[in-house]
Amino acid sequence: MEIFLSREMSHGRRILSEDEAMHCVKVLRHREGDIISVIDGEGTMYRCRITSASARAVEAEILSSEADWGAHPYRLRLAVAPTKNTDRYEWFAEKACEIGVDEIIPIIGARSERKIFKTERIRKILTAAAKQSLKGAVPKICEPMSVRDFISGVGAQPEAQDGAAASAETASSEACLNGKGSSRAEEPLKLIAYCFEDESHPRISIKEALERYTGLEVTVMIGPEGDFSPEEAQLALSRGFIPVHLGRSRLRTETAAVTAAEAAYFRWME
Amino acid sequence: MEIFLSREMSHGRRILSEDEAMHCVKVLRHREGDIISVIDGEGTMYRCRITSASARAVEAEILSSEADWGAHPYRLRLAVAPTKNTDRYEWFAEKACEIGVDEIIPIIGARSERKIFKTERIRKILTAAAKQSLKGAVPKICEPMSVRDFISGVGAQPEAQDGAAASAETASSEACLNGKGSSRAEEPLKLIAYCFEDESHPRISIKEALERYTGLEVTVMIGPEGDFSPEEAQLALSRGFIPVHLGRSRLRTETAAVTAAEAAYFRWME
Repeated sequence: MEIFLSREMSHGRRILSEDEAMHCVKVLRHREGDIISVIDGEGTMYRCRITSASARAVEAEILSSEADWGAHPYRLRLAVAPTKNTDRYEWFAEKACEIGVDEIIPIIGARSERKIFKTERIRKILTAAAKQSLKGAVPKICEPMSVRDFISGVGAQPEAQDGAAASAETASSEACLNGKGSSRAEEPLKLIAYCFEDESHPRISIKEALERYTGLEVTVMIGPEGDFSPEEAQLALSRGFIPVHLGRSRLRTETAAVTAAEAAYFRWME
Repeated sequence: MEIFLSREMSHGRRILSEDEAMHCVKVLRHREGDIISVIDGEGTMYRCRITSASARAVEAEILSSEADWGAHPYRLRLAVAPTKNTDRYEWFAEKACEIGVDEIIPIIGARSERKIFKTERIRKILTAAAKQSLKGAVPKICEPMSVRDFISGVGAQPEAQDGAAASAETASSEACLNGKGSSRAEEPLKLIAYCFEDESHPRISIKEALERYTGLEVTVMIGPEGDFSPEEAQLALSRGFIPVHLGRSRLRTETAAVTAAEAAYFRWME
């Protein structure tokens, strides 16, 4: 099942962006009158009939629509430190999208191996993964922010690292921190996966933390290989983050992040 | 923490294989008298003192040992169809090792995209992942076998696809099918992730299947993108496999396999 992304509408019709139109017309050879499936990236899938097709733009009238298409019953925000090897972060992004995630925030901490992070490629991977796993919503990738800013809930203004297209599509830090789910009555659950090797703080498993929680909005912070700094962990605790562990296994950053996504997936699995 | 693998002993001393010795002496510049950490790949970690060091062989006397080092409290066998793209299978193997798995069996079915499968590279990845995640046991990678042979529990004899080293290190199909855990009193739990798009069979979630099970030995079959054939699924059911689903998300083969590993991980998480 081929899915196209259309973030734009005009006169009640879905408009495919240039790259999507190119793929639709040049590669898949769709023509006027063809029926295609389109997601808006916000959660809805549309069955559409193409009304005009060129390699630069495709317009399609909406025949039917399905909200919350392929949606998961919770909201998950993963704040994950960039990995030394970018492939590993890209892999995490793809897998988290397949399993179920709403927002990914690259957080740069005192011990982060990588301080510079490009969101553009992650955004493409998330779009492809959402289409492939039949989800109407494409998870947001936020501009990187410092661990302190993330914890404080005060995002720095996003920088358009990849030109206009990037800045246009990038969820701003503010948007990430005040995401769709934040209007829920229940307080969001905020978790930080941290070692506390000095054993100064008792930790519960992420599984137990999720089972105790009756709401639907979860944020999990995953640090770099070198973990968060004690100061960062203390700040998180002072702002209501609950320290959790991810079980006995020693997991790489990207595996820990996917494990956090799986923990939520299993918490709400029927 | 640098970990070395030694599958061999001589006069009570651990012997590093040539590639491990090379890494130990040439790269890390270890010398006689140095203390190193060695795993036997079967579950035990040894603290050793090097008694003789050359680029071809390293001998080390055992100072102390720890059984079940980094072990998980259950036994998991994942029978997973090869993916079209081998990187995805390699990724799954690495992640499953980090999370916790005992045996990986590549199973070739009627709808498998890939019929040829090389175990040698997966074996190297599993060894590296076990060291990196501080586990004394290196998961076994079995020689590929047909879905039918796997279900029937009658493995074809292994073929040394990669020469002597491979055949020496490769767990035979028999060994895979009659692994360490099989001596347990409790019947092993056998699960097959299958769609049954005709809805002829009610499925429970893998989470529920694991929660109902009181034993410690689990086998999960994960099919190719095109799923198992109805005949393969029927054969599995007739042999006591329980049909399960992995939740609402549409997962790629390698993501489904990692999700199965995570399901067991969370089932026994404390």
